[in-house]
Amino acid sequence: MAITIFRKAHFNAAHRLFRKDWDDKKNQEVFGKCSNPNFHGHNYELIVGITGKIDPETGYLIDLKILKDLIFQEIEEPFDHKNLNVEVPEFKNLNPTVENIAVVIWEKLRVKLEMKYQISITLYETPRNFVTYNGN
Amino acid sequence: MAITIFRKAHFNAAHRLFRKDWDDKKNQEVFGKCSNPNFHGHNYELIVGITGKIDPETGYLIDLKILKDLIFQEIEEPFDHKNLNVEVPEFKNLNPTVENIAVVIWEKLRVKLEMKYQISITLYETPRNFVTYNGN
Amino acid sequence: MAITIFRKAHFNAAHRLFRKDWDDKKNQEVFGKCSNPNFHGHNYELIVGITGKIDPETGYLIDLKILKDLIFQEIEEPFDHKNLNVEVPEFKNLNPTVENIAVVIWEKLRVKLEMKYQISITLYETPRNFVTYNGN
Amino acid sequence: MAITIFRKAHFNAAHRLFRKDWDDKKNQEVFGKCSNPNFHGHNYELIVGITGKIDPETGYLIDLKILKDLIFQEIEEPFDHKNLNVEVPEFKNLNPTVENIAVVIWEKLRVKLEMKYQISITLYETPRNFVTYNGN
Amino acid sequence: MAITIFRKAHFNAAHRLFRKDWDDKKNQEVFGKCSNPNFHGHNYELIVGITGKIDPETGYLIDLKILKDLIFQEIEEPFDHKNLNVEVPEFKNLNPTVENIAVVIWEKLRVKLEMKYQISITLYETPRNFVTYNGN
Amino acid sequence: MAITIFRKAHFNAAHRLFRKDWDDKKNQEVFGKCSNPNFHGHNYELIVGITGKIDPETGYLIDLKILKDLIFQEIEEPFDHKNLNVEVPEFKNLNPTVENIAVVIWEKLRVKLEMKYQISITLYETPRNFVTYNGN
Repeated sequence: MAITIFRKAHFNAAHRLFRKDWDDKKNQEVFGKCSNPNFHGHNYELIVGITGKIDPETGYLIDLKILKDLIFQEIEEPFDHKNLNVEVPEFKNLNPTVENIAVVIWEKLRVKLEMKYQISITLYETPRNFVTYNGN
Repeated sequence: MAITIFRKAHFNAAHRLFRKDWDDKKNQEVFGKCSNPNFHGHNYELIVGITGKIDPETGYLIDLKILKDLIFQEIEEPFDHKNLNVEVPEFKNLNPTVENIAVVIWEKLRVKLEMKYQISITLYETPRNFVTYNGN
Repeated sequence: MAITIFRKAHFNAAHRLFRKDWDDKKNQEVFGKCSNPNFHGHNYELIVGITGKIDPETGYLIDLKILKDLIFQEIEEPFDHKNLNVEVPEFKNLNPTVENIAVVIWEKLRVKLEMKYQISITLYETPRNFVTYNGN
Repeated sequence: MAITIFRKAHFNAAHRLFRKDWDDKKNQEVFGKCSNPNFHGHNYELIVGITGKIDPETGYLIDLKILKDLIFQEIEEPFDHKNLNVEVPEFKNLNPTVENIAVVIWEKLRVKLEMKYQISITLYETPRNFVTYNGN
Repeated sequence: MAITIFRKAHFNAAHRLFRKDWDDKKNQEVFGKCSNPNFHGHNYELIVGITGKIDPETGYLIDLKILKDLIFQEIEEPFDHKNLNVEVPEFKNLNPTVENIAVVIWEKLRVKLEMKYQISITLYETPRNFVTYNGN
Repeated sequence: MAITIFRKAHFNAAHRLFRKDWDDKKNQEVFGKCSNPNFHGHNYELIVGITGKIDPETGYLIDLKILKDLIFQEIEEPFDHKNLNVEVPEFKNLNPTVENIAVVIWEKLRVKLEMKYQISITLYETPRNFVTYNGN
């Protein structure tokens, strides 16, 4: 029987919603103030969920210390206090909407975790706007 | 692959749990202090979830500005600072339990949103009591 | 040296902002939708703070069990699931603004607690609007 | 059509992560500071979700008063202010990880609730670590 | 007797900690990753407190509608979705630390509110870091 | 003009309310279930406030990195995942009530911080019970 364990993490970053192949006027029309060329920013709250079976030996689904360190190394370290558009390679040609950021986080963790685990990502851009993504 | 985006909103309202076809004694027996004939009230916290595919052009599942305005027009405007039993037509003959309010909200948004989107409603009546409904 | 201990409590109630000696039109002009004659309501979150000295024998400022029971008896029991304008005597002739409700709560607890304790009241009407009052 | 209603509850308890059939050194290696022989503790936040159909007569999925009392009797009363390893029989031979505690809570409620209801358990061990379990 | 009423608001913005009269190396030494030349950003949560006497006619300390509109016009509109260093004149020559932002907000509201009101500003830069300032 | 900056931290620990010079019966009478000889525990949320003047050179009241490290070294490291009664020397002969824990934290930080700073401690034992202490 499956259980899901969740770990919260946090990073803050600057971004703008922007497509390189559109001019500033088109970006402004579609993305409004979120496309400010001088950037704005957010405190992103991240909840990573891992689904699998409890290991009967330890009573753990996964050692949270390992999960915490993985989130730090793969997400917090490369994203925190960064400008997503300028400094994070995944968004060189991908618009850093909250939807796309969640998908990128899922993909970065997917390659680092055993396939016996399912992964879900919940990402808050603000306390009122958030997404969930689980790769299905 | 599907993703879900969530938007929080808020309204506060008076209500009582009450069936017109029961007398006050029966209403009191079944619903207790929640059936106080002088009404009581709540700050309702609403989370609307929309599930669908990311538009590869914009990186959006749905423009949150449009969703925010729709929730305002369909839910906050008609419910906020109202007496649900007396002033909201949907509850003329429907007991405004938190379950029924969530179903009504889902139905009001369902007719306004394209069928390619699935909708989920989470509604907090108090910080300790809440429901989720997704029409399935 | 003084310390302050806080206890949270909760009640939900219906109310309207309303002066009996004004007609409905004047009430509507001054209080807007908060004066809806059919009432609206809130989940009120209450934080009672007690300031005094630590009893060196017990390490307590005050036994929180006693404070919890006092808040229940004086505030939660008479206010919860009530219509403040109609059913709570303190608001028979007093407009139940969040400011006035906080003052009434302070006064009800003041007469029940020893004068060696200072009392502060924080009252949330919504997550975005709240007051503090300490009788000074 | 199904709906889910949630009720929050709370208990605080001491525990250590520990297997009787391992010596202290092995417990320390696997569970680290969580295996402190003198115990540590948590405020556990519990959210019980019940899924089923709305009763058209009452508008209730389940009377929350009944659910609240059941959670109190089955979970809060036997777990609150207790040492889980020493005083709670379910953990005599079961390591009280947050995963195992959630499963135990699910099983205790499962035998007390009608089979027409599905049950989900969300259990916060800290604000950053939590699990969900629904018996599937 | 005085009472304080609080109103919460929100803006998100990009910034970097930076003094123009220091070179990048010195800025980096003193402000670390907070001085990233490409900027980072935050969701700033703002709580404005107004202290004064209750108007016995209305039961209001201040009409919260007026306070809400003032905060929108003076703070949210000019700060939200902006780059504080580049686009907000108050930070042209002032390092936008959370301390300095709080003082600027206080000063902007001080000139717009009657002197019979005292003003306090609480500003969260992250859920773990925040300041209060009241001009004394 | 003074400003206060706050930093949140967290530790979890086991404890019991207990005086060595009272027998178990007396401890039980005064402290009830909080005196369980097998201990219980809490997630303690700590907010440290530092009051002083803004350094005009940096725009900082205090470098939060330094404050964060000090809280870690003086409070989180020695208290986290510990049994307060058994393992923390300050509570060898001092009942670990939330009031006394807050005073001990204040005293530990007071000797490490320059006297130009005032210190306030807010300590949550549960989400409903907390204290503030500032040494006056």
